[in-house]
Amino acid sequence: MRNILLIVSYDGTNFCGWQKQNDQRTVQEELEKALAFIHKQPVELFGSGRTDSGVHAVGQAANFFSPIDSIPVENYPCALNSILPRDIRIMSAKQVSEDFNSRFSATSRTYHYFIHCGKTAFAHQMPYVWSIRRPVDIDRLNRMAALLHGEMDCATFAAAGDQSLSTFRYIEKARFFYEDDKLVFEICANAFLWKMVRSIVGSLIYYEKKGFDAEDFAGIIESHDRSKAGPTAPSEGLFLWEISFEGTRRHP
Amino acid sequence: MRNILLIVSYDGTNFCGWQKQNDQRTVQEELEKALAFIHKQPVELFGSGRTDSGVHAVGQAANFFSPIDSIPVENYPCALNSILPRDIRIMSAKQVSEDFNSRFSATSRTYHYFIHCGKTAFAHQMPYVWSIRRPVDIDRLNRMAALLHGEMDCATFAAAGDQSLSTFRYIEKARFFYEDDKLVFEICANAFLWKMVRSIVGSLIYYEKKGFDAEDFAGIIESHDRSKAGPTAPSEGLFLWEISFEGTRRHP
Repeated sequence: MRNILLIVSYDGTNFCGWQKQNDQRTVQEELEKALAFIHKQPVELFGSGRTDSGVHAVGQAANFFSPIDSIPVENYPCALNSILPRDIRIMSAKQVSEDFNSRFSATSRTYHYFIHCGKTAFAHQMPYVWSIRRPVDIDRLNRMAALLHGEMDCATFAAAGDQSLSTFRYIEKARFFYEDDKLVFEICANAFLWKMVRSIVGSLIYYEKKGFDAEDFAGIIESHDRSKAGPTAPSEGLFLWEISFEGTRRHP
Repeated sequence: MRNILLIVSYDGTNFCGWQKQNDQRTVQEELEKALAFIHKQPVELFGSGRTDSGVHAVGQAANFFSPIDSIPVENYPCALNSILPRDIRIMSAKQVSEDFNSRFSATSRTYHYFIHCGKTAFAHQMPYVWSIRRPVDIDRLNRMAALLHGEMDCATFAAAGDQSLSTFRYIEKARFFYEDDKLVFEICANAFLWKMVRSIVGSLIYYEKKGFDAEDFAGIIESHDRSKAGPTAPSEGLFLWEISFEGTRRHP
């Protein structure tokens, strides 16, 4: 059986997140329905990780074992897109080795978080940004973000209810930059705790407003106390941007 | 009574267009509800023109006569945005002269139409682009678009059911350009026939694919025969971009 990796984009607005749940509209369920329709039998899909309700993706990765060989791999995106709802798009498909698993073969995940700092965001931007309606000091934000680097205990940014055995994660990169009229926070790590990205963004924006700089923010990180985190940033600004796998990186 | 001009942005996805209609969700109705709530009495709103179901706006203009004087003009955007649904945003408010009318004082309207030429648009872009999934010859498109200039009979691009007395319009500008990964068609005219922008875009893309150049397209325009127009482009790519008034232009 061929193992096929899909790169998936979705608009999270009308989804209760990635993972299948009873009686909820989820991305995984819509995809499995489309796969079952094409293959005329149930097909299980393995995502690289969950995303929460309202979170978007441009580069989610998910693999499945195709029970039939008659569909050329390169035809999957078009075949699936023609039956999927418009808020899910398959960006690409490729065959991977039999032991490849989107979750366990992933070496890092990159998220982008979009923030609108101007007075009012346009209506069509609203579902895809956090509108904070004030200017920020991007240099100070970047000095604080630079502390998020390497192997570290991220307990400050763990949501209540997170069931991870360890709160240690390896952060490769965390930085702010401007893109058009938006402020973007990019973070790349081997893995994330539940709601960790939104907790980090919320904390950085919260403490930036309070006038904190790197040395003050170091204390927040090192407290390992989640009551010290700022309010969790809303889901609509968050995009799962890219999953990297061993020896591969799509955007080097 | 103060005459107040609002610049309005909306995401047309979930609206049956601008203009009030029985039992339909429209932008005008949502705005009049919000104005009535703030003023504690009905307030009539005058838009610069209708937009169809699914069409977006970043710079629609609409004015109303405020029945009370106690609200500072500069407070209107914030007051309205706090009660409006998120798919309508008030970008600005200013007091205008008593004889100002958004429709009749407007000297020109500018629309932008967004086209995705790549293989697959990201899911979150889908509600805001026409995805044609093929590359285009932008130089040839621009040679054809350049014919749309000055006072001209636009009957080729008039939709069935249009009730305008004349099909002549004055076109100031019509051109294509690239913005990020999107192809944008910009058109500015004193006024437009019903569905005229979408008919022009649909025709240009249709005849570009057929290999037409300026001289062939001139024949289409001069036929004044709407059966010669290409298929009308879908509403989701269309944005009402800006309304200009006598002596004013916000983006010169």
